[in-house]
Amino acid sequence: MDILMNKVGIIGLGHVGATTALIMAQRGKVGKIVLVDKNFDKARAEQVDLQDQISLLDTDTEVVLQDYTAQNWEELKDLDVLVFCAGKIALLKEHGGQRDFELQMTSKIVAEVAPKIKASGFNGVIINITNPCDVIARLLQEQTGLPKQQVLGTGTGLETARMHHAVGEATGHNYHDVTGYVFGEHGDTMFPVWSTVRVAGKPISEWKLDLKQLTQQIVTGGYTIFSGKEYTNNGITTWVNLITEAVLSNAKRALPVTVYDSQLNLYIGQLAVIGENGVQKVVDLPLTSEEQKQYQASAQAILQNYQKVK
Amino acid sequence: MDILMNKVGIIGLGHVGATTALIMAQRGKVGKIVLVDKNFDKARAEQVDLQDQISLLDTDTEVVLQDYTAQNWEELKDLDVLVFCAGKIALLKEHGGQRDFELQMTSKIVAEVAPKIKASGFNGVIINITNPCDVIARLLQEQTGLPKQQVLGTGTGLETARMHHAVGEATGHNYHDVTGYVFGEHGDTMFPVWSTVRVAGKPISEWKLDLKQLTQQIVTGGYTIFSGKEYTNNGITTWVNLITEAVLSNAKRALPVTVYDSQLNLYIGQLAVIGENGVQKVVDLPLTSEEQKQYQASAQAILQNYQKVK
Amino acid sequence: MDILMNKVGIIGLGHVGATTALIMAQRGKVGKIVLVDKNFDKARAEQVDLQDQISLLDTDTEVVLQDYTAQNWEELKDLDVLVFCAGKIALLKEHGGQRDFELQMTSKIVAEVAPKIKASGFNGVIINITNPCDVIARLLQEQTGLPKQQVLGTGTGLETARMHHAVGEATGHNYHDVTGYVFGEHGDTMFPVWSTVRVAGKPISEWKLDLKQLTQQIVTGGYTIFSGKEYTNNGITTWVNLITEAVLSNAKRALPVTVYDSQLNLYIGQLAVIGENGVQKVVDLPLTSEEQKQYQASAQAILQNYQKVK
Amino acid sequence: MDILMNKVGIIGLGHVGATTALIMAQRGKVGKIVLVDKNFDKARAEQVDLQDQISLLDTDTEVVLQDYTAQNWEELKDLDVLVFCAGKIALLKEHGGQRDFELQMTSKIVAEVAPKIKASGFNGVIINITNPCDVIARLLQEQTGLPKQQVLGTGTGLETARMHHAVGEATGHNYHDVTGYVFGEHGDTMFPVWSTVRVAGKPISEWKLDLKQLTQQIVTGGYTIFSGKEYTNNGITTWVNLITEAVLSNAKRALPVTVYDSQLNLYIGQLAVIGENGVQKVVDLPLTSEEQKQYQASAQAILQNYQKVK
Repeated sequence: MDILMNKVGIIGLGHVGATTALIMAQRGKVGKIVLVDKNFDKARAEQVDLQDQISLLDTDTEVVLQDYTAQNWEELKDLDVLVFCAGKIALLKEHGGQRDFELQMTSKIVAEVAPKIKASGFNGVIINITNPCDVIARLLQEQTGLPKQQVLGTGTGLETARMHHAVGEATGHNYHDVTGYVFGEHGDTMFPVWSTVRVAGKPISEWKLDLKQLTQQIVTGGYTIFSGKEYTNNGITTWVNLITEAVLSNAKRALPVTVYDSQLNLYIGQLAVIGENGVQKVVDLPLTSEEQKQYQASAQAILQNYQKVK
Repeated sequence: MDILMNKVGIIGLGHVGATTALIMAQRGKVGKIVLVDKNFDKARAEQVDLQDQISLLDTDTEVVLQDYTAQNWEELKDLDVLVFCAGKIALLKEHGGQRDFELQMTSKIVAEVAPKIKASGFNGVIINITNPCDVIARLLQEQTGLPKQQVLGTGTGLETARMHHAVGEATGHNYHDVTGYVFGEHGDTMFPVWSTVRVAGKPISEWKLDLKQLTQQIVTGGYTIFSGKEYTNNGITTWVNLITEAVLSNAKRALPVTVYDSQLNLYIGQLAVIGENGVQKVVDLPLTSEEQKQYQASAQAILQNYQKVK
Repeated sequence: MDILMNKVGIIGLGHVGATTALIMAQRGKVGKIVLVDKNFDKARAEQVDLQDQISLLDTDTEVVLQDYTAQNWEELKDLDVLVFCAGKIALLKEHGGQRDFELQMTSKIVAEVAPKIKASGFNGVIINITNPCDVIARLLQEQTGLPKQQVLGTGTGLETARMHHAVGEATGHNYHDVTGYVFGEHGDTMFPVWSTVRVAGKPISEWKLDLKQLTQQIVTGGYTIFSGKEYTNNGITTWVNLITEAVLSNAKRALPVTVYDSQLNLYIGQLAVIGENGVQKVVDLPLTSEEQKQYQASAQAILQNYQKVK
Repeated sequence: MDILMNKVGIIGLGHVGATTALIMAQRGKVGKIVLVDKNFDKARAEQVDLQDQISLLDTDTEVVLQDYTAQNWEELKDLDVLVFCAGKIALLKEHGGQRDFELQMTSKIVAEVAPKIKASGFNGVIINITNPCDVIARLLQEQTGLPKQQVLGTGTGLETARMHHAVGEATGHNYHDVTGYVFGEHGDTMFPVWSTVRVAGKPISEWKLDLKQLTQQIVTGGYTIFSGKEYTNNGITTWVNLITEAVLSNAKRALPVTVYDSQLNLYIGQLAVIGENGVQKVVDLPLTSEEQKQYQASAQAILQNYQKVK
């Protein structure tokens, strides 16, 4: 008799992967974390630093390493969730933040890693963070051969948080009082679904705000962080922890994430019910005709990127 | 593919069972709680009140009922942990708190419930709270036929907390600065293992305290609570949540709990390493000869009780 | 130099007051809790049980008693928040749950306690739970003479949680996906502000539900709990903790609570921004004409009760 | 009436400062965080990233910036705690990790910043992280002129965590089962106070371990992290959060931190009781003669460093 405790893997220990593990240890809802990185010394360093952290906290999380060079990635076999955040953000900076360069680089990483995930016998839920998030989520699904419901991406969850904050500021309200979602690409073509947005119960339309400018502000938020600290980690790693916990507790919550859209045959950010097997269903949210256009345009942008690397 | 989320059952929804569930919902580390009580209206009331609570919190815990009168207690089949806290503390009060009356009453409840647990196919870890804790833990193990390592009791964890508090007060230190354990019966013959007790790094002996009186104070603590509020719940339910989490996260922590002592062939409070399959090993802690005597005397008291109902 | 840590008082240690303290200790955001109860043994018992609990947790909360019989309630002087939950729910049961009996009883308690609060020099925020919540909040404000913004009640926060749950169940969604509020009396005339209610982004109207029946279900929820366990505590004490934390962290969140309505000159449940000085402003939420009628009717019911005891 | 909520400042937003804020937001026990960094864009980036994070969490923490170039650092005036973690770890790496270079660099930063802290009217508790921790703590106290009890350093808390982990591994126990402390310099001359160390209640001596080698392992732990990730942040930032919370909740806990030793007239890592005004007292822990020698040697090492920059 072995009780199967929660077990989560993290591939890629840059700032995002490392902070994902740090927050996971802090929240104490995962029994075992498996770290994987091409740079073994980095992985070992994070393991020791996490153990220092856990030793100080009243939580029990075991942290183990999966050797990247091993023939068989055995530790992945019985994972419940695998957070994918491989990438080289430092390289990105050298290339002036060019999105195309990033796409070429990260799609190659998927080609290298996906077969190893598949070969391990992994049959849990993959949550992708690596950019471009929507394209990489699709590549991961295709190249691991996992059912589509078991592969998703962090998508527009972060933009949703930013929208809550921007709207809160514009209306003089706490951002926790703002509800509603951002949809589309995790990138410049994302769009707030303004018809869903309310502030302390009131529709956003009552405030007569310049919504175009607010949308711009949400896009800019990411750049402000990136230009000031060269990466973003607080928001995105908190978000991936919340999605992970929704899977582990079978929460069946509707979250703005990147999932497969069967009509358009691509991965894109929208509202989906997340539970123990990943995506339980896509929420059929009625969009205004303007929002529908934005959704189509965003899908088009994702598709173009996808075609560059498929 | 179904990720097996943490699932915990609670049998008996008096003050202790109800508060165990309340704290479990608050901590948010369990995916599903199963409530069982002979009084269905009580179980239903607790379910609704828990749902009100969870709706207000940012946690996701499903709360379901197992009908006591059902032929097969199906919800117990795939539990990881079962907290047993059946009993009628109100009846106990009417009988002037007589321990013998309690023993007769609760051992009958075990005889009624253990076969239902067994028949359900349950193969997780039972943590017993019902008093007399050491005897009831043994009866539960015997009557469910589960391996001894899968049945334990909350034991002297609560007395250990009280000892920390009493010693902290006596030495002018925060109780979190006190380390060491209480062993023996969860009852009047328990004893602090003074040779293990330190305050901010210093052995307790350095303070020249009246240890007999301190021991008395720990016993009295329970009565102070009982006489003032007619039951105790805060400490014991926090403790059972900590043990539960140690199992669910495979913590392998050494905790002062009631476990099987193979030499004496009985259940008694001592230090044991708790992890995913319950008791992973009993810690071989060297006792002074005085402490050994106290341990034997406490074992004797437990045995006498056991023989009254075996 | 003394850093002023968070200090919260609780008057009345029935099931609600005791569980409020238990959750407060669990959450660990308050430095000092002051317990006040007419029954000193009960207060002392709760203090010891809380200390057992805190000793087991990695939180530091000091728990002290304010002697009810003391001439001067000194411990109240520098409280940040005072939770008022005095009442005798056991008496209520004996009188068949008659609301009028409760009103007579609890308004007398206010008359006894308010002068003591005033005399102590207390100048923090009072959060009232005692029923009838809206009337008692008003009496507390009037009889302590505190500014109106410093006195509020838990109001329709609990009904809001219940509405989220009922709507979630009716639509097959997690209750955390439901947004919107319940307004009015904390009692039978409360009403969901359906124009604010959305489920996973969609207006409630899209589901073609029987809203009258849902409203009934929310009212019934309380009775289900009350009849099954003779009191309700999980939801209400979680809620009062959230309001308390909003004050202590100066959250400026919009919460559905009982506050003073200057147009109607009474206390009633509606949306208000809560921060360090209590009520920072009442949210001007546009109601439909139907909702306005319900609000007026609910105000009328509160007023009638108030006039019975003013 | 303004309730004084908890307010904490962080000077220096490198990996340590930024992660300190991240964990603080995660734990949700601080009402307001003030960020200070010479690089305004970095400070602004962290603020936005923290707001994204908090927007996703159910906590309320306001994050504000104190402009480094401002004449008067007004936001520091009413801080309860100020975490000092200014430094340039990147420069350190370029200089091959030379400790002397670090000392020269960081002592200059103190000379620049301490007068600004003083001028702001700050009268809270400073917790220093910047290395060499013991020397910088002393310089901060001297140059701000604050009472010695209001200035402390993170000291050997991190080494204590590492010792717990190393001993746990060596004895096959969970590190939470290890008690005892590391004293001395936060640096190579630190030493475990083996006479205080116990594992699941048993003195460390019972295991016949090679304590010299274990000590070496604790020192090496830091280098493993540093060489693998170029900085350490998980452990140290968790630790500084725990000390901060001990101050804010007036915990009066005995923690292994850097405090003023009045006999030796220097700052050094040892056990001290931490509460609302910082150091409430130094714990008089009896050391073995061997440990006393190590303490003296460690004090000597700190003194030599201090004399280089005084």
